[in-house]
Amino acid sequence: MKLLAFSADGRPRPGVLKGHRVIDLAAAGLPAGADGDLLEIARGGNGALDRVRNALDDGGARSYALSDVEVLPPIRQPSKIVAIGLNYADHCKETGLAVPAAPVPFSKFTSSVCGPHDDIVWPVSVTREVDYEVELGVVIGRRARDVAERDALDYVMGYTVVNDVSARDLQFLGPKQWDRSKSLDTFCPWGPYIVTRDEIPDPHVLRLRTLLNGREMQNSTTGNMIFGVPAIITFLSRGTTLLPGDLIATGTPSGVGFRRTPAVFLKEGDECVCEVQGIGALRNRARPV
Amino acid sequence: MKLLAFSADGRPRPGVLKGHRVIDLAAAGLPAGADGDLLEIARGGNGALDRVRNALDDGGARSYALSDVEVLPPIRQPSKIVAIGLNYADHCKETGLAVPAAPVPFSKFTSSVCGPHDDIVWPVSVTREVDYEVELGVVIGRRARDVAERDALDYVMGYTVVNDVSARDLQFLGPKQWDRSKSLDTFCPWGPYIVTRDEIPDPHVLRLRTLLNGREMQNSTTGNMIFGVPAIITFLSRGTTLLPGDLIATGTPSGVGFRRTPAVFLKEGDECVCEVQGIGALRNRARPV
Repeated sequence: MKLLAFSADGRPRPGVLKGHRVIDLAAAGLPAGADGDLLEIARGGNGALDRVRNALDDGGARSYALSDVEVLPPIRQPSKIVAIGLNYADHCKETGLAVPAAPVPFSKFTSSVCGPHDDIVWPVSVTREVDYEVELGVVIGRRARDVAERDALDYVMGYTVVNDVSARDLQFLGPKQWDRSKSLDTFCPWGPYIVTRDEIPDPHVLRLRTLLNGREMQNSTTGNMIFGVPAIITFLSRGTTLLPGDLIATGTPSGVGFRRTPAVFLKEGDECVCEVQGIGALRNRARPV
Repeated sequence: MKLLAFSADGRPRPGVLKGHRVIDLAAAGLPAGADGDLLEIARGGNGALDRVRNALDDGGARSYALSDVEVLPPIRQPSKIVAIGLNYADHCKETGLAVPAAPVPFSKFTSSVCGPHDDIVWPVSVTREVDYEVELGVVIGRRARDVAERDALDYVMGYTVVNDVSARDLQFLGPKQWDRSKSLDTFCPWGPYIVTRDEIPDPHVLRLRTLLNGREMQNSTTGNMIFGVPAIITFLSRGTTLLPGDLIATGTPSGVGFRRTPAVFLKEGDECVCEVQGIGALRNRARPV
């Protein structure tokens, strides 16, 4: 199933895609998160997903044409967004950093979340070097702590697309803590859907691409990840609790803008499309202010 | 006012201290956060604080002896916890890192929050070098974005104490991203109170100390911060939205364990007390598992 948060009339609510129509899950009695999003369905686990399936099968469910709704970020405020740095060997190479021996987690502040079609907006007084990073996103579906690798995928609600937007001039300042450079408001477009785990039995065979104004900038497959999804979940869950709705961005392949010659940074009006096979595409315009 | 979250009977709720008694703010009609904590009061701004004042003045309000209640973390799940690294010159010196030209933000996952008297618990399979860091905490009281320094304190709800517990063997691995090392479950004890801003007109004159099994390990004053509270809020709010209830840990002075000779790390049964003048003390026991 492709789950989403959407607005048809200014009121955000959870939904599920049925062909080119969006079934209104709030009208079907499913709980909406405080932001009208999928957080409560994530918390509801398999029971909630069964109820979504029933709504899909109900011929009388209220629905809207996908083209008539605004698609919102699936969850506006996860309890945390953890991104994994340097998780593709070719990206390590282009950045000149060593291939890590263990996953390298950092955070994106949840205030950086924006929708799959929202503008990426930044003050030029803060950064002039804004870059894209397409990533497979993993949404946690069950409280996870000290999870074995063989069980790790059982804790996944589904998969999504994340653009780990990054201000390169901030990222490598001083002691090089990455969080702020990746956490300005609108620097975490994600969605457009959470595709439930049952539809993606193997998350390591998905093509992912970035197109900037139609030009292909990144093209790889999740099979090139150094640490796969189970390894990441197991690693993070050692000593740390992952909660339903938490978003993990699994790293980006090569082709980012700042290591190109000449360097490429987002500029006014650029259209940045990030897509992952079987999930969908983010389509965001750049808007420096 | 000293605001707190507490439990008298297993049900968490917001409260306010009146001498040695805790007034039950839920019984007084104030809204509780989803975790029975102070989040909704933070979101309620000055209007909510006025209602707390009324409850304090109400001689008939339901109350409990402070010694009879369990004091909980003031807010269990802020939207983010931002900590500022290297914000005391003597701490920069002891760690061998340069004094930064701008604040160095990183994140503590909100899943690391624990109460002011809870055990600090860590798997020895994950870390064997757990260290303390006493810090002045700032709790945001109003949505803040692009705030001028002269106005910054208007966005503060109040002040608190944070122990920025840190796993040193994880902190400096690979590309040295600090988040995970400071975000294991229970690595963010905070509280015991949020002391409202009106009671601390100048947050830069407060003594802060760590006592480990009664021995003084850190002793400094917030006047030694490199970047003061207004500068930190202004810096973070440039491009990033701070939300009510967000917690900022403003950095630790010298005296941490890992740079001592010999190095000092928390061990089974250690009692770690972190205190900030005019606010109160965290008192946590170490429990490796």
